[in-house]
Amino acid sequence: MPETLPENSVGIVTPETYVFDEPLSLASGRTINYYELVVETYGELNESKSNAILVCHALSGHHHAAGYHSMEDKKPGWWDAYIGPNKPMDTNKFFIVSLNNLGGCDGSTGPSSINPETGKIWGADFPNLRVRDWVHSQARLADKLGITQWAAVVGGSLGAMQAMRWSLEYPDRLRHCVVIASAMKLTAQNIAFNQTARQAILSDPDFNGGNYMQHDTVPKRGLSIARMIGHITYLSDDGMGQKFGRDLRSGSFEQGNEEPVEFQIESYLRYQGQKFSQSFDANTYVLMTRALDYFDLAREYNHDPVSAFKNALCKFLVVSFTSDWRFAPERSREIVNALVRADKEIVYGEISSSYGHDAFLIPGQERYWNLFSSYMKQVEVTI
Amino acid sequence: MPETLPENSVGIVTPETYVFDEPLSLASGRTINYYELVVETYGELNESKSNAILVCHALSGHHHAAGYHSMEDKKPGWWDAYIGPNKPMDTNKFFIVSLNNLGGCDGSTGPSSINPETGKIWGADFPNLRVRDWVHSQARLADKLGITQWAAVVGGSLGAMQAMRWSLEYPDRLRHCVVIASAMKLTAQNIAFNQTARQAILSDPDFNGGNYMQHDTVPKRGLSIARMIGHITYLSDDGMGQKFGRDLRSGSFEQGNEEPVEFQIESYLRYQGQKFSQSFDANTYVLMTRALDYFDLAREYNHDPVSAFKNALCKFLVVSFTSDWRFAPERSREIVNALVRADKEIVYGEISSSYGHDAFLIPGQERYWNLFSSYMKQVEVTI
Repeated sequence: MPETLPENSVGIVTPETYVFDEPLSLASGRTINYYELVVETYGELNESKSNAILVCHALSGHHHAAGYHSMEDKKPGWWDAYIGPNKPMDTNKFFIVSLNNLGGCDGSTGPSSINPETGKIWGADFPNLRVRDWVHSQARLADKLGITQWAAVVGGSLGAMQAMRWSLEYPDRLRHCVVIASAMKLTAQNIAFNQTARQAILSDPDFNGGNYMQHDTVPKRGLSIARMIGHITYLSDDGMGQKFGRDLRSGSFEQGNEEPVEFQIESYLRYQGQKFSQSFDANTYVLMTRALDYFDLAREYNHDPVSAFKNALCKFLVVSFTSDWRFAPERSREIVNALVRADKEIVYGEISSSYGHDAFLIPGQERYWNLFSSYMKQVEVTI
Repeated sequence: MPETLPENSVGIVTPETYVFDEPLSLASGRTINYYELVVETYGELNESKSNAILVCHALSGHHHAAGYHSMEDKKPGWWDAYIGPNKPMDTNKFFIVSLNNLGGCDGSTGPSSINPETGKIWGADFPNLRVRDWVHSQARLADKLGITQWAAVVGGSLGAMQAMRWSLEYPDRLRHCVVIASAMKLTAQNIAFNQTARQAILSDPDFNGGNYMQHDTVPKRGLSIARMIGHITYLSDDGMGQKFGRDLRSGSFEQGNEEPVEFQIESYLRYQGQKFSQSFDANTYVLMTRALDYFDLAREYNHDPVSAFKNALCKFLVVSFTSDWRFAPERSREIVNALVRADKEIVYGEISSSYGHDAFLIPGQERYWNLFSSYMKQVEVTI
């Protein structure tokens, strides 16, 4: 908990809830008639409304991307390292909008909300969502904020999939698209990890087919295993080795000692799993991993990413990290190659890092900071 | 099921059970007073008893490494591709011994056996084992078979850890040590995957603290998740991509279609998980992954693998596979470097393969076959 807030912090922030009661048609064919989105904003919207950035969150993210909710907060928002005065997403220049996506579990309408049409918890009946549904709901949020065109739509991982989809669904509503640690579609291995995580949740007896709230249970075991799987794959082998190695938390390998041995990495992972299982909603996790698996940028463009990106009108920054094996640099190079062949303006940086997929969140990476920062400085804003 | 057995098969084989009733002191300080080992042998032991090869199995392996138990068998033993007449482990030349390790669940004494001292199922009370315990029990098996010195001890993965430990524990009892797709110790990431798999089992309510047999339950969900995690990590990203890609098993991505989508990789993995959970013992899985995590070749040699290997008297073949990311070629090169600095005779081959860690089991890899075969041809056997 900070005694005083850091100078380059956006400070104390307060989320706001926006209500949407026009029916939203979803990719699944279903319609959601009423939903709320929880939103935080940082910086000031200028008069021409040309300085707005939309930040899209990844799997377990939410609207609280920067600053603190109170002086008692132990940690700032999840992307605080890169949002704030004089940071790459500079709040002296930009007005930054960050929301909890539809289907989320941090205040926006999702499986754990009441469906006003039935008066009951959505639970298993909450509609399946695709990335494009989020983009459409975000466009309505932009309408409500009076933002006709984003200066940039920015995201990492699943967030970057939303940014890319924005460039195709609403080409004239963004000038820059920032795609960090992402892919145009997941590989079989990546789907397999998500599927195993989902299976851990779905097979937890406390999941009750998704209606666990109605049964007053929480599928903590499954969620915990899901998080552990995710966590391992968001870090790199080297990074874990440097941080934990084979250090022991308890026990000893001395012969004749029957006390069970626990490695530091084991205790760390179990703690991460347990913490997550107490705070995140299982249905949301299932829904978000499915959206991730289903995303395929060029599916409706005859599976040709070049013809997909030909629809885009914005400029692109693409960033990857060398040790990210879940969204490997090769996946980013595929994006870059498609963009180049579609004649788009693009900056690409592959950042040396041992932080794995999580690198996009981690502070203190000079080359990443410089690249991100210098790109954002060039984002034109009229006064 | 074969109508006729392939020409290069060892044919129909029958396992035998060996009984050991001399107390075996374990690394944990505990003692096991009575145990049985199930063993298969292929080929003929020669008069000088100089042609015997010990095959050590990996995590979920067992004694049935080659041939068929009956004409009704759908599949031969797990290493059949490399054991048989004119195969690398040539039964025209060698007498091959393959056992289910102590703690196993395929007939040897393990957690699902009756402890004769209590008349009850061992369950959670079965002692923790280390790789060296297996090596000691295998040495007793050698004694029983009258084999003073193995022509070679051969293993892949956890099996290769046993082979390396043999070279240090009983240097004069083997002439060759074949170390395939292995490591001198696991990385933090590797431990993390094992831990997550174990946690899935331990947190399954049907595990009942390891005494599930006494409770008439089977922790199938946990075992299934554990196997799924393992399976993903034993294959390579490329290999999975080639085999499954993003092919669908059911459903469609057409918009307006709410039917759930299932990828081929999902259905394959779920099937693998379920199959495994019906045939493998959960306590054995926990025990074997722990032995894998705890293994650290040089721990008792001041953490110096060179001084560890200085104790070895045999020659070494070390093999790794390019796409094996769970036991990466870098881990094998560490073994090779230590062996070279310890002045050992060594052949090393890094095989190009897209099969990941499982490559050591997969037939039809010419370079692997040739390397393995030509090395084994040079293994000297007196008549």
